[in-house]
Amino acid sequence: MSTDPYNGRMDAAGTHKYEQVASEIARLIDSGTFRPGDAIPSVRELSRQHGVSIATVVQAYYLLEAQGLIEARDRSGFYVRTARPSALPEPDISAPRSDPTGVSVRDVVAEVSLADTRHPNLVQLGAAHPNTSLGAPTALTRIQASVARRMGHRIGMYDYVPGCEPLRVQIAQRALSSGCRLSPDDVIITTGCTESINLCLRAVCRPGDTVAIESPTGFDALLSLDVLGLQALEIPTHPRDGISLDALRFALDHHRVSACLVVTNYNNPLGSCMPDDHKRDLVDLLAARDIPLIENDIFGEIHFQDRRPNVAKAYDRKGLVMLCSSFSKSLCPGFRVGWVVPGRFMPAIRWLKYTTSLASPTLSEYAIAEFVASGSYDPYIRRIRRTYERYVGALSDAVRRFFPPECRLTRPGGGFLLWVQLPERIDSLDLYRRALSAGIAITPGYLFSPTNQYRNFIRLNAANWSDETLPALRTLAALIGQ
Amino acid sequence: MSTDPYNGRMDAAGTHKYEQVASEIARLIDSGTFRPGDAIPSVRELSRQHGVSIATVVQAYYLLEAQGLIEARDRSGFYVRTARPSALPEPDISAPRSDPTGVSVRDVVAEVSLADTRHPNLVQLGAAHPNTSLGAPTALTRIQASVARRMGHRIGMYDYVPGCEPLRVQIAQRALSSGCRLSPDDVIITTGCTESINLCLRAVCRPGDTVAIESPTGFDALLSLDVLGLQALEIPTHPRDGISLDALRFALDHHRVSACLVVTNYNNPLGSCMPDDHKRDLVDLLAARDIPLIENDIFGEIHFQDRRPNVAKAYDRKGLVMLCSSFSKSLCPGFRVGWVVPGRFMPAIRWLKYTTSLASPTLSEYAIAEFVASGSYDPYIRRIRRTYERYVGALSDAVRRFFPPECRLTRPGGGFLLWVQLPERIDSLDLYRRALSAGIAITPGYLFSPTNQYRNFIRLNAANWSDETLPALRTLAALIGQ
Repeated sequence: MSTDPYNGRMDAAGTHKYEQVASEIARLIDSGTFRPGDAIPSVRELSRQHGVSIATVVQAYYLLEAQGLIEARDRSGFYVRTARPSALPEPDISAPRSDPTGVSVRDVVAEVSLADTRHPNLVQLGAAHPNTSLGAPTALTRIQASVARRMGHRIGMYDYVPGCEPLRVQIAQRALSSGCRLSPDDVIITTGCTESINLCLRAVCRPGDTVAIESPTGFDALLSLDVLGLQALEIPTHPRDGISLDALRFALDHHRVSACLVVTNYNNPLGSCMPDDHKRDLVDLLAARDIPLIENDIFGEIHFQDRRPNVAKAYDRKGLVMLCSSFSKSLCPGFRVGWVVPGRFMPAIRWLKYTTSLASPTLSEYAIAEFVASGSYDPYIRRIRRTYERYVGALSDAVRRFFPPECRLTRPGGGFLLWVQLPERIDSLDLYRRALSAGIAITPGYLFSPTNQYRNFIRLNAANWSDETLPALRTLAALIGQ
Repeated sequence: MSTDPYNGRMDAAGTHKYEQVASEIARLIDSGTFRPGDAIPSVRELSRQHGVSIATVVQAYYLLEAQGLIEARDRSGFYVRTARPSALPEPDISAPRSDPTGVSVRDVVAEVSLADTRHPNLVQLGAAHPNTSLGAPTALTRIQASVARRMGHRIGMYDYVPGCEPLRVQIAQRALSSGCRLSPDDVIITTGCTESINLCLRAVCRPGDTVAIESPTGFDALLSLDVLGLQALEIPTHPRDGISLDALRFALDHHRVSACLVVTNYNNPLGSCMPDDHKRDLVDLLAARDIPLIENDIFGEIHFQDRRPNVAKAYDRKGLVMLCSSFSKSLCPGFRVGWVVPGRFMPAIRWLKYTTSLASPTLSEYAIAEFVASGSYDPYIRRIRRTYERYVGALSDAVRRFFPPECRLTRPGGGFLLWVQLPERIDSLDLYRRALSAGIAITPGYLFSPTNQYRNFIRLNAANWSDETLPALRTLAALIGQ
């Protein structure tokens, strides 16, 4: 053995002692013994445990810190990092084809999305479901029972458009934090964001019309365009800043577009979040052409930064922005409660909602209204933001460590989704099928473009992180390597 | 005073003593002291109470019986009749115009239907709401709480198309009583019958297409046609037997029709119920032309006869019948749970449901499934059938007694709605407004035809009968007389 300029010894394979210590800690982090946010043993303790010098341990910790696996906190030692910068590069801004196109994703949605839900024992990295084990459904159920007792037979009644007033009050109050001044009368309760978006599309588009969308974009939106007979115009979208305004402007100059549909905050699947000044520019760009913006803000509450990002609706002066959201990602989807703030399209949306489903589930609405009004929602949402941030961090690390180094990976600032660009040779639908056979659900890139731009991409959902996740990712990496 | 050939004496006004006794009993029935189904005092008792002879009382009771107010039951005395034949004639079969027409009922729906729900203190004879005070919401809430405890966080999850399997099993089992052999896989759960019907219309019609409908027909259906840009072709409909097959055949021979939308059992507002052989003929008539039948059976469970009437779906051989229903009238609407059995249109309906609202409220579905499976639904539905029959009888009597004799009135065999033809001089929208000022909600005939065939008709809902109902009907009669 020889010494190196810094410290310690090398083994027969030429590995420094401190590197061995570091990789042992890294293994413990990978295996979940130490999880994001956990303190790791002190220098003194590790030195004693491993029978190595203090200097060797310090060196190992510096290495782990350099790798982005741990971080020092003043006077309190080292911790597993929660949001470490990915060592993998981000995907490039997308470059979809620039003509409107028909949408036909039913077959692949049928195979992928609807099939997954019939296999309850899969390791779920696929469907964009939130984690319903984090306490909200239980708390909500308790409140629901007490609301039911108090309301008596009134919970059996229709709660017609615009729906539950106490809930509309809470939605209007919370909208302040996203830059919007709303009155409860500006809000219509729906049975979820999907209903909201469909009502908006139906209000402003006729079959054959063209809708500008982000590329990639969530398949629920693509399916809506498909079923409504609408054309999609895919706009290049940056993995961090969202839809390209230059590209959108160019597209609007060359095509007749009836509406623009954008997830402004933490786009599915990219996790991109438009800077607030981009949102203002987007609103102005569309307003100058009198084109409605259908804004999906369903992930907006799940931000990892201190401040909630604004919505584009905050910059709406002409009533052209139709803000859609729901409690399905931030609380849980099974209650089927969402909303739409339709601006100048209020009369059309009111009739569409009335004829589409008449009313929303009464008890769900009132229970969520009370959950929010009682002050229980805020601590819950703060907690799940931290949880999802940790899970996204852990999933990013695992991808970085297990997946081939030529992969690329997004760095979302909110939500719970990751978008992975795999080597060119990988067909994501083939990978999907092989992963399913191995008991793992992922979402293949085929689902995110009407022109199949993302053959070698997959979306991973970090929300339901469990003890099975790391082994599943190792298996997935092996399938990719095959 | 003089004697008359039968019995007793006349007073100064020439009224027989027995008539005075009878009218006093009638007043007690009108005021609700004796309600439909109640026993009235025995002959002996009344003779003692009034200080009149047994013979006078017997004569009074014969008179009340002749008026249809009471009935004798073997060995157990006299009872207030529950379903007395109306002394008023039924309305004639309708004779709407025979060309397809655009539908525009939004203004009057906005004034009438949406406004009513904002006045909780009205005497409610208007909106076709079931009575949610009859016990179902309470029992359901109890079951819901226990289901929530057992399911835990799974109640927070999406329950994707086709929706809750245990509920589809129950729906398939119950369908046997309406002549249908269904598998649970034939059923898609929706967020109510309105959603079901809209999905069906969207599956088989394009904007501008024509849909054949009953005349009169419920305004929810008219509103759907309006919002979807469809033309309505009103078909003459008999107040007891439903849509005229001869008229429909003639219309189909002269117009291109994309679908036929019919409430086969207890049509809203007529209460008409197609005889089962008419249903078979209807299915055959449409099948020969390959025209889909959208069948609304939302009132089918609320029959006053011994046997549940069949649905037209029972005679469907080509998969052209799309059966729509929900628990909104038989249990309560606030849970937002309905279904559709779309036959050959299953693939289209599946996608439409998926994109329209993704899933239905999970806990509502499972709670209703357990309510039905536990055996609690059947006794409940038997009880409300009797209750609604009594209420419909009481409301019919009151109309007969208070309203002008030139009125006409339906004689529904199920449901809880009555359709009243008022004298020609009455404008039902004007009456609606004056009634509203007097604290009474009714539904004006304007809402039941796209060509305003029913200016002098009103629909009354008997479901929410209360102590306030008779005084309200007296007030309404006075407004009609003004």
